[in-house]
Amino acid sequence: MGNKIHAEVLSELGSALAPERVLTAEADRWSYSYDASFGVYPPECVVQPISTEEVVALVRIACKHNIPLYPRGAGSCLSGGPLPVYGGIAVDLTHLNQTLEIFADDLVAVVSPGVKTGDIQKAAERYGLFYPPDPSSSGISTIGGNIAENSGGPRGLKYGVTRDYVLGLEVVTPEGSVLRTGGRTVKNVTGYDLTRLIIGSEGTLGIVTKAVLRLLPKPQARRTMLAVFSDLVQSGRAISKVLTSGILPCAIEIIDQACLRAVEAFRPGGLPIDAEAVLLVEVDGHPAAVEEEILQVAEICRQLGSVHVEIAKDEQTRERLWFARKQISPAIARIKPTKISEDATVPRSQIPAMFARLKQIREKYAIDLVVFGHAGDGNLHPNILCDMRNQEEMQRVEQAVSEIFQAALELGGTLSGEHGIGTMKAPFLSWEVGEVGIDMMKRIKTAWDPLSIMNPGKIFPEPGNDRLVLRQ
Amino acid sequence: MGNKIHAEVLSELGSALAPERVLTAEADRWSYSYDASFGVYPPECVVQPISTEEVVALVRIACKHNIPLYPRGAGSCLSGGPLPVYGGIAVDLTHLNQTLEIFADDLVAVVSPGVKTGDIQKAAERYGLFYPPDPSSSGISTIGGNIAENSGGPRGLKYGVTRDYVLGLEVVTPEGSVLRTGGRTVKNVTGYDLTRLIIGSEGTLGIVTKAVLRLLPKPQARRTMLAVFSDLVQSGRAISKVLTSGILPCAIEIIDQACLRAVEAFRPGGLPIDAEAVLLVEVDGHPAAVEEEILQVAEICRQLGSVHVEIAKDEQTRERLWFARKQISPAIARIKPTKISEDATVPRSQIPAMFARLKQIREKYAIDLVVFGHAGDGNLHPNILCDMRNQEEMQRVEQAVSEIFQAALELGGTLSGEHGIGTMKAPFLSWEVGEVGIDMMKRIKTAWDPLSIMNPGKIFPEPGNDRLVLRQ
Repeated sequence: MGNKIHAEVLSELGSALAPERVLTAEADRWSYSYDASFGVYPPECVVQPISTEEVVALVRIACKHNIPLYPRGAGSCLSGGPLPVYGGIAVDLTHLNQTLEIFADDLVAVVSPGVKTGDIQKAAERYGLFYPPDPSSSGISTIGGNIAENSGGPRGLKYGVTRDYVLGLEVVTPEGSVLRTGGRTVKNVTGYDLTRLIIGSEGTLGIVTKAVLRLLPKPQARRTMLAVFSDLVQSGRAISKVLTSGILPCAIEIIDQACLRAVEAFRPGGLPIDAEAVLLVEVDGHPAAVEEEILQVAEICRQLGSVHVEIAKDEQTRERLWFARKQISPAIARIKPTKISEDATVPRSQIPAMFARLKQIREKYAIDLVVFGHAGDGNLHPNILCDMRNQEEMQRVEQAVSEIFQAALELGGTLSGEHGIGTMKAPFLSWEVGEVGIDMMKRIKTAWDPLSIMNPGKIFPEPGNDRLVLRQ
Repeated sequence: MGNKIHAEVLSELGSALAPERVLTAEADRWSYSYDASFGVYPPECVVQPISTEEVVALVRIACKHNIPLYPRGAGSCLSGGPLPVYGGIAVDLTHLNQTLEIFADDLVAVVSPGVKTGDIQKAAERYGLFYPPDPSSSGISTIGGNIAENSGGPRGLKYGVTRDYVLGLEVVTPEGSVLRTGGRTVKNVTGYDLTRLIIGSEGTLGIVTKAVLRLLPKPQARRTMLAVFSDLVQSGRAISKVLTSGILPCAIEIIDQACLRAVEAFRPGGLPIDAEAVLLVEVDGHPAAVEEEILQVAEICRQLGSVHVEIAKDEQTRERLWFARKQISPAIARIKPTKISEDATVPRSQIPAMFARLKQIREKYAIDLVVFGHAGDGNLHPNILCDMRNQEEMQRVEQAVSEIFQAALELGGTLSGEHGIGTMKAPFLSWEVGEVGIDMMKRIKTAWDPLSIMNPGKIFPEPGNDRLVLRQ
């Protein structure tokens, strides 16, 4: 593919949208050539539709001329989801952001794909309601991107992920029809669950133009604590004990020693840099319940060997406790120029085993590997710090990443908990879903998108792509 | 189709399974000819596989000879899901029930499809855990059937439905391959969400042979109350007010006057038969929280005009309060020989409007129509009591049912909240999902099941089936 955007196509796009929302200048093409993962792939042109009708017209033009479409939201994807790997048209959906309506009595929000997730959370709160999914990027990421990647976040433990809060969708199909899935009710078994087929399909099955989201009553209170462990395995046991004691925290985050040291070096604040692990636990709900539950969690942590427990007394202390967690990404990014953020996820009982495997991998390949993540739901973020320009190092990193995937799968886990497959993990897909899984997924892709117009080059392994995480 | 099961097929089935688990006697065929909906369709033969391998062999034989397969669990389906409408082979999966394992540290259960849902709930409770979906049939229905129909229940309001608790599946595809979807973690975005595509697909995309279920910590306490309203609309307002006050009950059930009278006539217990509606509200969670929340709910109900509120003081009173709700089905079944149980679902703010529409429909068609259901999530159960032998009455009933569907859709709801489409609602599918929706669903069906072996005659409208709910 490539070099398909000739004058006729541009003229059709300009008539269907508006000439000023069809961009071909080199600076524009480069602005849409990357996401938060790796690789730079400039599209041949960028379009900025503002309505479902414009998306329909766009898709029909792309079909007519057989041009690949690369939908994108804010571009904060960590797996290469929006990268225009075969050129074609980048579809910037951030301008399709007109609708953000809260229907408080129905506990429902109706949103356009370009609306920022954080803005949905704020709008819901004004009605005493709550949109639980909280990817760390929620301040900038769009709900459309969250739906494409089925984004998670710390609250996944108690509240699940984006998938659990989407009731219905309007989708422009790869052939330019308007499909409406699901509806406004939590209960709906009318035909196949196309809503959840679209969620997490990374823009390969259509373009979402509207979403109906489920909201919850906003929890009235929350309490937060931090527990320091000199032994990582004991912290894993504490997590299990909490979860089998009738308490379901909204977050249990883990921070390993390497992360603690990186944060302390970045913004000194007295973190326990000799600890093997720190757990950050938050409970939410009824004030009386959280008051008692946070004390129970503290007691369990102490019983299982925590050397220090601190319960936040007020919002200010809570923010200080979360500060360390939130500084990890910037702190570790300072260590070396390249940061590879993984999201291998294991059944939560396997967290200590996964930490042991990660330690072996770090030593075997002599790499800078730090670990933090959402321990309560088994979703770890091993991060490798390296230098893309150092080819010898990158070869070791490639092997290490591949071994991290292998370890997660051997422990009963998954390649990707919340970042998606995109380009980065596509070569490894068969390791998890098998040839039968790929076959059944591809049958859907082919049946829905016979021309392979929608985001080609993603999810499925491509010939010649020999299990390389970092395609240049 | 039909008359395809000749000696060669029987011999192949006998070798693949075991002759004693291949049944062709007339009594056996009749035993598998019905479910809890309408219509009697004896299969040509019944098989009882006990392993994945046997299911694979069975599917391959069916493909070779082009014989339809009709998977079934306990047969408690209310929409015709398991009915062998084209003869062929009924696949009794209740014998595939060997596995029921709880992995407490992972908050996961691994189960065979023939295991009863109630047994999973009991097994989880022994570990202090909780499997939330609670279809009213859970004492007899199988988890395989629940997965096929995406079953709900009263707790859907707080806890969602079966879909929200299935993490992974083993499925024998319509061509006899073994597909493994999802896994053991809540977070998983590795490729398309085939798990949820299978859930609710009513056995048309494969046969589930194993499931990994998500469990929660068991709530430590619950409190229950009953509120009597002389005005139905006020009861709807009370529901909205509760849900926007930061309280998320695990159940809000509504019972209309006709149901109250039927129950009181059946088992007199002092029910308020002059009330327009009764709400049954249950909260669960931390003891201190539920204690306070139930008082808040009671206060809201009083403020919004409830003429009488009773909070259960102990487990015995709780059971008495639930007794009325649980007696509705047997009580109304006494009224007339035929009982048609619908599950039209509307956005919860539309419950008063839906009640108004149901009242009009009752009067317009002079039918016996009573209403109860899961008001908190908008999932009502209008039940029509009639006599199948009275053709004139049944014509009115047909029209009334069709108008109930129309009303639900006009109010932004769905044809089916938790019973499925099956045979009964297939003719109406396009009303909700449109021609584009049917097309995209059929593309998946055709791509996965090119021979149309798996449960043909379900979900999709068939030529000549002219929007009749009750096919004889």
